[in-house]
Amino acid sequence: MGDAQRVVEALTKDEAGAVQRLIEWLRIPSISTDPAYAGQTREAAQWCADRLSEAGLQPVLRETGTKAKPGHPIVWAHYGGPEGYSGPHVLFYGHYDVQPPDPLELWESAPFEPVVRPAEKGDPKDVPGERIVARGAVDDKGQVAGFLEALRSWHEVVGPLPIRLTVLIEGEEESGSVNLERFVEEEKTHLGTCDVCVISDTGMLGRGQPAITTGVRGMAYTEIILTGPDQDLHSGMWGGRVRNPINVLVELLAQLHDDDQRVTLPGFYDRVIEPPQAERDAWAALPMDHVGGLEKIGLPREADAGEAGWTSVEREWARPTCDINGIYGGYQGAGAKTVIPSKAGAKVSFRLVADQDPETIAQSFKAWVQARLPVGFGLEFHDHGGGHPGAVPFDSPFLGAAESALEAASGTKAHLIKTGGSIPVVGLLKKELDLDTLLVGFGLDDDRVHSPNEKFELDCFRLCMRTHAHLIERFASL
Amino acid sequence: MGDAQRVVEALTKDEAGAVQRLIEWLRIPSISTDPAYAGQTREAAQWCADRLSEAGLQPVLRETGTKAKPGHPIVWAHYGGPEGYSGPHVLFYGHYDVQPPDPLELWESAPFEPVVRPAEKGDPKDVPGERIVARGAVDDKGQVAGFLEALRSWHEVVGPLPIRLTVLIEGEEESGSVNLERFVEEEKTHLGTCDVCVISDTGMLGRGQPAITTGVRGMAYTEIILTGPDQDLHSGMWGGRVRNPINVLVELLAQLHDDDQRVTLPGFYDRVIEPPQAERDAWAALPMDHVGGLEKIGLPREADAGEAGWTSVEREWARPTCDINGIYGGYQGAGAKTVIPSKAGAKVSFRLVADQDPETIAQSFKAWVQARLPVGFGLEFHDHGGGHPGAVPFDSPFLGAAESALEAASGTKAHLIKTGGSIPVVGLLKKELDLDTLLVGFGLDDDRVHSPNEKFELDCFRLCMRTHAHLIERFASL
Repeated sequence: MGDAQRVVEALTKDEAGAVQRLIEWLRIPSISTDPAYAGQTREAAQWCADRLSEAGLQPVLRETGTKAKPGHPIVWAHYGGPEGYSGPHVLFYGHYDVQPPDPLELWESAPFEPVVRPAEKGDPKDVPGERIVARGAVDDKGQVAGFLEALRSWHEVVGPLPIRLTVLIEGEEESGSVNLERFVEEEKTHLGTCDVCVISDTGMLGRGQPAITTGVRGMAYTEIILTGPDQDLHSGMWGGRVRNPINVLVELLAQLHDDDQRVTLPGFYDRVIEPPQAERDAWAALPMDHVGGLEKIGLPREADAGEAGWTSVEREWARPTCDINGIYGGYQGAGAKTVIPSKAGAKVSFRLVADQDPETIAQSFKAWVQARLPVGFGLEFHDHGGGHPGAVPFDSPFLGAAESALEAASGTKAHLIKTGGSIPVVGLLKKELDLDTLLVGFGLDDDRVHSPNEKFELDCFRLCMRTHAHLIERFASL
Repeated sequence: MGDAQRVVEALTKDEAGAVQRLIEWLRIPSISTDPAYAGQTREAAQWCADRLSEAGLQPVLRETGTKAKPGHPIVWAHYGGPEGYSGPHVLFYGHYDVQPPDPLELWESAPFEPVVRPAEKGDPKDVPGERIVARGAVDDKGQVAGFLEALRSWHEVVGPLPIRLTVLIEGEEESGSVNLERFVEEEKTHLGTCDVCVISDTGMLGRGQPAITTGVRGMAYTEIILTGPDQDLHSGMWGGRVRNPINVLVELLAQLHDDDQRVTLPGFYDRVIEPPQAERDAWAALPMDHVGGLEKIGLPREADAGEAGWTSVEREWARPTCDINGIYGGYQGAGAKTVIPSKAGAKVSFRLVADQDPETIAQSFKAWVQARLPVGFGLEFHDHGGGHPGAVPFDSPFLGAAESALEAASGTKAHLIKTGGSIPVVGLLKKELDLDTLLVGFGLDDDRVHSPNEKFELDCFRLCMRTHAHLIERFASL
């Protein structure tokens, strides 16, 4: 029997203890966005550090922020690995802070008084299976706890870890990770030696369908304001004499896509890495109905639309897009006002895929707009930031190791999925450290993340603990 | 010496009396939009009717509105013309109500205590020339008074009028003319026999440059709201899977103009009557710098833009246009929000020229949008109304008569101009009665219409009175 298997057996025996420990952690209202909870937030960090100590690591609480604007501490620990170790350096990232629990009146049990209970009639997907109900159950304390339990058990059953490991558990993920970038910069030398990052803060494809999220899209979020005449004009006196900033804006934005719904910015696709055919085939074979999702938003399947030549799932996971997220100009009240406004604006964002660079894209968009302004028009340009895309190559050995760990833990093959969304920490690690992240998550669609009655099912918690035990072993063998 | 000339001599002799009478009228605060002034508004109507009586007509005050929502009376008079008369039936329209005087603190003399004073240093265009300063001085009591004085003097000096005349002076022009359409419908049989309408409520080209405004544009004002998904979506999860209502909106609106800035709605230009070359030549020769107006709104002359093949003045006066007056959708606050909104909308208006029909254009736009909606999308369409265009043909005998009258009164040739704006009463008369309107106005650009210290210069008042005397004679000779 391998080490991981022995650890899993120990985890199974002490499952009640693991649940009890998670409940302790969940009792601490570590609401990072509310300064009133700063004490409890620190308490939750210390709780986490104590568990790492029990697992044989030497964690520290690293202060963040400034004296004027203190942040919440980062739980930080490092283990150098066995003597003569030449395998990968693994970074584990998680967060111990939680969302505010409002609206309180919709909770069936108090958000910080965790309860374990079976599924009841009326629960989403009304399936059997005990669950822990509390704020933070799945996002992200429960999933970090799975990792902590694997470490504890490894330490007790096997002894020292067989890998080089760095642990970074922050307390500001739910309030914008405002101090994380600075910390990563400060620890760049150390973090720069990491080979892969593992995060358990996402979901599976469904019950009994474990999944690894191998990529997130990046983003470049911009705002353009076209300025024409220096005052609002009467559309009777001026209509036909002068370009209307709204007319100009729509004509300009309409040129951003061609008839195939491809983005027309020069060089936009230059750095796009296309997914290999094997990955596309695997996505096509996934047990999910991606196009059918349209029906949940009130649209027929025939409304499926996007860049020509790619399926719905490919377009979300592996293709860059451009959306106008907001547009404004002129009169927006009730009825009619015959105005030609002085200016008109739009918020335009680009979702990016590896290896597109957000700043390059934002600047290229700015130049593209500038080159198309009518005579006498000006441009106010705002770069609202964004993030780098992240993608683990389909043939990455780390991905292979994670697949194998998940299969060993679950008895079933893991699905490889991506998300069209952007996860800031993934982009940050990619940008600052060129580090790829494996998102090995154990949530379910109906876990009510950020909502009342958030839950984490015990089956998921169990799989999380076991997977992290197998991950340690698999990474050690690389 | 002709009759008109005799009348003009009498008008000259009694100018002090005319000014005194106008001052009396201006003292009455006939603020139609404020119910607190309903009594004074009626008083101003009665004052006007009394002057018509003194001129030998039999005016009546016609009540408007309903018991629940009474309107202000219309001063209504008719004179059948001489025995066996076969000349034109002339409608004179004006209004006796005024705008509220706010902000009061900016008036140098009380708005309803008219003063006659010379131009002072600091007056706009600081030119010599006495002026009457009061609310309503030029808009429109002063100009209506010019017509009333001509009638009075004709009655005293010559006797019965040589024309068939109908007088309609309303008291709700400054509050939307809400009861005018109903009145015109009620009196359709009578008004249907009118051949031309004369209104003195506009301006000249400049001091010493009398002008006749021979056309106004009409309008069709619409609002479209494109509805896509039944909820706002996350642009990460959905970008690339579904058409974004804002993206669709801008692509659709961008198609409304071709590269020549012509409107692409099918049939849009079918009923457009192009101005004859002689009219275009006359406009080109006008002593004004239409393109130079751009510099007053912060744009260089090179920003002159619009439909290909037409000059700036032609585009404003004689060509239909399409402007987006408002646009909205998605996130408009500070910073970034990654939303694909459920819907997006725009207010789109078309300025129309004879003989385009506002309802036909609005419906054609609606059908055009409907035909271009993506699968699954819906359209909310609002017709915010508008008005019919009006244009007196360049070779109209009435126009010739008015030109001749203005030249006789001023000693200089009248300029024929148009306006790109829409004047509701002109559109109403065109729509209900197919009646053309001559806008023979005597205001100046710097008369501060609707603003504090509104004025009417005595030179302009004088020209107004004289022109109406000559108009009577000229119309009689047609």
